[in-house]
Amino acid sequence: MAAGSCVTVLGYAGGCGSAGPRPRGRNGMTQRRRSLWAWGWEEDEPSDAQRAERASELSRRWEIELEAPPAPRAEELELPAPRIGVPGDCAEFASDSPRERAAHAYGFSFPERLRAVRGDFSNPPDWVAHPRDEDELERVLSFCDARGCAVIPYGGGSSVVGGVTPPEEAPAVVTLALDRLDRVLELDDVSRAARIQAGVLGPALEDQLRPQGLTLRHFPQSYEFSTLGGWIATRSGGHYATNHTHIDDFVESLRMLTPRGWWESRRLPGSGAGPSPDRWAIGSEGILGVISEAWMRIQARPRYRATAEVRFGSWEDGAQGARRIVQAKLWPANLRLLDPQEALNAGLDGQSALLIVGFESAELAQDQAIRQAVALARECGGLVDEETVRISDGSAPTGREGSAGAWRRAFIGVGEALNLNAGLGLVADTFETAITWDRWPALDAEVREAMRAALDEVCGGGTLSCRFTHVYPDGPAPYYSFAARGRPGGEIEQWDALKRAASDAVLRAGGTITHHHAVGRLHRPHYDLQRPERFADALRAAKRSLDPQGILNPGVLIDP
Amino acid sequence: MAAGSCVTVLGYAGGCGSAGPRPRGRNGMTQRRRSLWAWGWEEDEPSDAQRAERASELSRRWEIELEAPPAPRAEELELPAPRIGVPGDCAEFASDSPRERAAHAYGFSFPERLRAVRGDFSNPPDWVAHPRDEDELERVLSFCDARGCAVIPYGGGSSVVGGVTPPEEAPAVVTLALDRLDRVLELDDVSRAARIQAGVLGPALEDQLRPQGLTLRHFPQSYEFSTLGGWIATRSGGHYATNHTHIDDFVESLRMLTPRGWWESRRLPGSGAGPSPDRWAIGSEGILGVISEAWMRIQARPRYRATAEVRFGSWEDGAQGARRIVQAKLWPANLRLLDPQEALNAGLDGQSALLIVGFESAELAQDQAIRQAVALARECGGLVDEETVRISDGSAPTGREGSAGAWRRAFIGVGEALNLNAGLGLVADTFETAITWDRWPALDAEVREAMRAALDEVCGGGTLSCRFTHVYPDGPAPYYSFAARGRPGGEIEQWDALKRAASDAVLRAGGTITHHHAVGRLHRPHYDLQRPERFADALRAAKRSLDPQGILNPGVLIDP
Repeated sequence: MAAGSCVTVLGYAGGCGSAGPRPRGRNGMTQRRRSLWAWGWEEDEPSDAQRAERASELSRRWEIELEAPPAPRAEELELPAPRIGVPGDCAEFASDSPRERAAHAYGFSFPERLRAVRGDFSNPPDWVAHPRDEDELERVLSFCDARGCAVIPYGGGSSVVGGVTPPEEAPAVVTLALDRLDRVLELDDVSRAARIQAGVLGPALEDQLRPQGLTLRHFPQSYEFSTLGGWIATRSGGHYATNHTHIDDFVESLRMLTPRGWWESRRLPGSGAGPSPDRWAIGSEGILGVISEAWMRIQARPRYRATAEVRFGSWEDGAQGARRIVQAKLWPANLRLLDPQEALNAGLDGQSALLIVGFESAELAQDQAIRQAVALARECGGLVDEETVRISDGSAPTGREGSAGAWRRAFIGVGEALNLNAGLGLVADTFETAITWDRWPALDAEVREAMRAALDEVCGGGTLSCRFTHVYPDGPAPYYSFAARGRPGGEIEQWDALKRAASDAVLRAGGTITHHHAVGRLHRPHYDLQRPERFADALRAAKRSLDPQGILNPGVLIDP
Repeated sequence: MAAGSCVTVLGYAGGCGSAGPRPRGRNGMTQRRRSLWAWGWEEDEPSDAQRAERASELSRRWEIELEAPPAPRAEELELPAPRIGVPGDCAEFASDSPRERAAHAYGFSFPERLRAVRGDFSNPPDWVAHPRDEDELERVLSFCDARGCAVIPYGGGSSVVGGVTPPEEAPAVVTLALDRLDRVLELDDVSRAARIQAGVLGPALEDQLRPQGLTLRHFPQSYEFSTLGGWIATRSGGHYATNHTHIDDFVESLRMLTPRGWWESRRLPGSGAGPSPDRWAIGSEGILGVISEAWMRIQARPRYRATAEVRFGSWEDGAQGARRIVQAKLWPANLRLLDPQEALNAGLDGQSALLIVGFESAELAQDQAIRQAVALARECGGLVDEETVRISDGSAPTGREGSAGAWRRAFIGVGEALNLNAGLGLVADTFETAITWDRWPALDAEVREAMRAALDEVCGGGTLSCRFTHVYPDGPAPYYSFAARGRPGGEIEQWDALKRAASDAVLRAGGTITHHHAVGRLHRPHYDLQRPERFADALRAAKRSLDPQGILNPGVLIDP
């Protein structure tokens, strides 16, 4: 992609614009390794003592004897031998060490997390490549194409749908980790766009934009351990609750390596020339090609903010309030509705729903917008304490105090709780969908009834809660969380039954099997019911034309 | 598509929800016929006297002898005999009458308009079908698939890129006119969505939404004679100058008949389940299937409006102002920038550029938004006369007075001028693109230089002007108009040279060959250079899977 006249070419140590190899461990930080089982870095894993303490806490609460399984250790891993070796021309940037293979054996779905903490790494990739440039990327794909070896494009490994899991049936599997392609290569401040390599993790991406006063502002919950390429490949949903919610809208152009060569689109702010090539690739989950970089639409960092908290007497009233605001096209950056159960985390009474409204802007005061949103919410029966309406010109962030702040801290702390509870018998997960407003009440009723019945039957009870993560003029994107006590050793089977009940209910009620978690392998049965059959024909044909050997992420999205 | 609980099923004469046949000429109006050569209805064609007057006016101005060619008359048409007859099961809704065939022989590109006014209908479709329901639609497609007969999906016939022109090389051609599928079938007021048949023209669509206080608000310049299905198939750009500009963003789901059966997506406000099936179909220009209906996101009719006119000392300063406002994410409905040449139509001095800014809302006062936009424009050197800042709560429309109003009337009057000038030797056309801001100045310079040279060389001079029709945070969509005096009899050749010069310049400078006019047949050579080659492979493969005989709109977008 050619640099334009106003484009700054960025570089480390010498300012060259190429994506060549460079020392790891930027900024003088010691190099951190990802945990083999926990969400996060190895150094942030809970200690054995902390896990034992959590186990006795749960033992007391549940009146059973619980013990945390010993966390897997790199030096004790028992893995099947690799079925295929690393070729000479990849040796410099690939490895078949047990730790590397184990570290890329799983995404972050419930059954995968459980297998990992139990030290079960029985189906890892045969080797893992970390190409440092496009030439090395090509070498891996050529080798796998020639050998009919499955390739799994791997960003941050945060997939909760089995999107990076080696398929059981493949004769050999290579995981293609993009972590060394982690740089912002060019900044076009005039057009507010940046050329960014696909393997960059969220925080490293923002670190590279911040000095210029810019930001992508795409903050999925997985933000710390997910990548730009992963977001694009899975149609990730991010920070913005309304208007442009998915990463899709921020892609200006992209570059993707297919087994038949490069696919690169033109940088354009908009186009009407045929179906959008980018929209064919966005959401393709690694089955059409490996995204290596993209020009992304970025933002000036917000300075003006305005937030408010609205309490509603019921979940239903809260939904009316959210609908009213989004249909007025005020486009708040935040418009998150918590059901009474979730609003408990924000300090509410368990009866009321909480709507958190937030506006932000780099240049413009947001006072009228928040006043208008509050007025609309009040018309729908919302109660707004004037103290919770905070308008800031940039001197202090808003939304970090009061109920909204409490909820925000709970949201961010999810990883820590997951890690402490790992392997302790909790069966807990989330699922999400989107549905038009007319069918939303029926979907919510259907899901709650199905999950209550399934939780009772499978686990003897449990909790279910919901929030809206994103809201559209024509419908909400509800996000459900469930938790129950599992039967020791039976958790995966129990999770499977609960997940199936959830997915069945969502599909029956007309929702999508996923609003932003992707399809991967886990959602396949329900995705197969949802997508138009003729579209599946077209997708299959397109895949065959780009990947005739079917090496790219087999089993994800579609069968050959 | 199943009706939801809050959905109103609409119907004529009895309120049934089916799309069955019904009497033409709704609302007691006499049935109007489209002109064989002019933009509009037959009854609105300029008279022979008016055309003769215009001819002598131009004769005087140019000091040559000009005569308007006699307008073609239905009863005098000379057409080649149909190569294939209407089958029995289509006889009720299809015709091979000379008038029907001639009326569907051309879109509205410059060479087609000229051939039409000269009465040259040498390559019409063999017959024209007007299916009244999906069963009849299927019959036409089955017949053509069995006979290997080319099918041209036809909406309003307004294509300026040869999108509905029968291909010369096809053994037989059937035009599939969707004009009888022209109803709003269901209205979901809760989700602000409507199920609408593809063949409805803009005004008839709005007529059916207006009683409910709703609107699609998609107003391309072709609005009167273009259809919902055509807008979707060509990624039409509409009313909104910022944020959601293309029809793409308003499609909630769609239904499309392919030679291999129906493709129907689920109604969803958002989804992350694989690549969007809708985005694969949107912009496919009739080569993958025939869109029969869509659920569209609609709007409450705006009541609050605010507009302002900003004068800039130069075209370049005007572009800075537009960029500043759109990057502040104020999302005005209108943000149209006219270069000094175009601003003459709005009464300006020929040196200044004019930026027309407009906000609208169904529920919320727009005073702060227009004040903020004006402040940003002034920071960029824009001059705003306070009198031109108009804020309305719905008692009166804004934007119809002053310079903006003058320009609006010129915009709407384009069809009339086209018709009066038809066949009088003017070589005039428009072309449009989109480009990122960093490369915009170079593109504009390249286009102006290339067109000045081409106009001089081909026509001994002419005029060129530009406006921004749509503006994105990362770049504008410039729309150029050119006009020159042609050589009698040589106009098509001259137009071809000018069009080629324009397209070459746009592509060279990094733009798209079309922002919202589509590719069709005319833009093919440049589209072929623009689209990723691997994407073309995928599109070709997808088409083969849905249309193995290659009957759908051959020559449009891609070769087999």
